[in-house]
Amino acid sequence: MTLDLEHTIALLERTPGALDELLRGLPEEWTGRNEGGDSWSPREIVGHLSHAERTDWMPRVRHLLEFGESQPFPPFDRMGQRKQMEGKGIGELLAEFAALRLASLDQLRELDPGSAEMERRGMHPSLGTVTLGQLLATWAAHDLTHLHQVARVMAFQYRDLVGPWSKFLGVMQCSGHSS
Amino acid sequence: MTLDLEHTIALLERTPGALDELLRGLPEEWTGRNEGGDSWSPREIVGHLSHAERTDWMPRVRHLLEFGESQPFPPFDRMGQRKQMEGKGIGELLAEFAALRLASLDQLRELDPGSAEMERRGMHPSLGTVTLGQLLATWAAHDLTHLHQVARVMAFQYRDLVGPWSKFLGVMQCSGHSS
Repeated sequence: MTLDLEHTIALLERTPGALDELLRGLPEEWTGRNEGGDSWSPREIVGHLSHAERTDWMPRVRHLLEFGESQPFPPFDRMGQRKQMEGKGIGELLAEFAALRLASLDQLRELDPGSAEMERRGMHPSLGTVTLGQLLATWAAHDLTHLHQVARVMAFQYRDLVGPWSKFLGVMQCSGHSS
Repeated sequence: MTLDLEHTIALLERTPGALDELLRGLPEEWTGRNEGGDSWSPREIVGHLSHAERTDWMPRVRHLLEFGESQPFPPFDRMGQRKQMEGKGIGELLAEFAALRLASLDQLRELDPGSAEMERRGMHPSLGTVTLGQLLATWAAHDLTHLHQVARVMAFQYRDLVGPWSKFLGVMQCSGHSS
């Protein structure tokens, strides 16, 4: 099974709008609360998506095409969003993510990798050899992992309010595997 | 902790738009595929949300206020969407859900239950006594459980394409507790 670039882009270009429709203007009860401790709120998840856009996806695509397996990707800082989010509201963070995504996809479309390039190899600092196709598929799946997380974190805020219905609501059973 | 009706409505009114932004116009690879067997595709999940809108949420609110604990809610048919979805594309199903939700929320706003009414009791056919506040919280959490499921079902389509990254993607580890 090979990656269909147009299908991947179709999803990547919709994520910012979907998060915007879901989160913009929502009370802070929904966007600012987390699952306890140092876990992430929807606001922080949007900040993380922007941080990944800046330092992870297209930078790694270019790194892979330039260096192949000879030089691993620089590691990704999973907490890198914290500084960049300071003082920004959810609306500003959503707009930032949308603009960054648009620019990334312009770059990807310009590059327009074909099926041979999808097999090009790079070196992940902990996973070892990966292909360009796997990197692009992971970009899309990473959007979905965080959409999945946003839904779970929001549902967590209602865990007591739903009373006995909790056991019928799958999201309340989700063990937090997506962070 | 009591339910803030305006916060609940704020989420309920955003779900159709968020699903529309995510799914409308996406290739059938994303919207029509499921997790195998008789599991649900995103298209079927949208159909299910419409079915719940027609037969579950506001009908149960009215039932609870009319009958209290004296008469259980009619059971909800979790497969009831199958007939109503036949021959409809994802765009039509999304529009249908949005229109039904708008009408439901008009009815809820007209009813405008206060904090005393949130404690009114009804009888769930298998869970027993529930309150109006719990029913309304469950309506919102049900949106989130299915958004969580949509993200998981879509990610499933890329489970092989992401290669070794799978272990870093929480959504790929989700055991399908939300159906």
